[in-house]
Amino acid sequence: MNKIDIDEKLSLFDDHWSPRIVAELNGQEVKLAKFHGAFDWHAHADEDEMFLVLHGTFTMEFRDRSVTLAPGQMIVVPKGVEHRPVAETECAVMMIEPAGLVNTGDAERSDRTTTGKWI
Amino acid sequence: MNKIDIDEKLSLFDDHWSPRIVAELNGQEVKLAKFHGAFDWHAHADEDEMFLVLHGTFTMEFRDRSVTLAPGQMIVVPKGVEHRPVAETECAVMMIEPAGLVNTGDAERSDRTTTGKWI
Repeated sequence: MNKIDIDEKLSLFDDHWSPRIVAELNGQEVKLAKFHGAFDWHAHADEDEMFLVLHGTFTMEFRDRSVTLAPGQMIVVPKGVEHRPVAETECAVMMIEPAGLVNTGDAERSDRTTTGKWI
Repeated sequence: MNKIDIDEKLSLFDDHWSPRIVAELNGQEVKLAKFHGAFDWHAHADEDEMFLVLHGTFTMEFRDRSVTLAPGQMIVVPKGVEHRPVAETECAVMMIEPAGLVNTGDAERSDRTTTGKWI
């Protein structure tokens, strides 16, 4: 029940595609991440994911279209839907998803694969 | 899988303590609300609630202390914990909580009692 300051948490890390967990509620985790470049195409079989842009912009690519998001804009990617976030410049994002979710979903594991870590 | 613009959604309503649902994921709802004044003391027996300030400030009062939140700051109120949000001036807040949650929790029902409605 402490105050969580998003920008303060964002100042604690610089690496891209490496979500940091800042809160948990009802089995969901609230994660912060910095995007830059293109992530791997993947889907999550059983988990919906929410993305809210905090700073910068990124594009959520789907197989048939794409959605570009600016600060204060969000999207929910339903379970089973292939997606790939792409950020031409660095973008800070809040994500909400079930605890323990693997960021690369059903894609082959890579050095980016993680469930996130608490900060 | 459409873009949700938070400020656009906030422009659609003016009433206080009346959450609007803007997204659903994994059984949780993402709600937007405008706070002004003091809400009712209450707790939710089985549901955690997250509050993220978008505009303005408010204070989450607990029985033994209080936490004041500004834009970009958030708090999770665990299930079972009595709380009361108080906003001296209007404050816009994002809330994440289980679908169907009643805003006044275990408090006596009032004309503010609602589970929110989609916009």
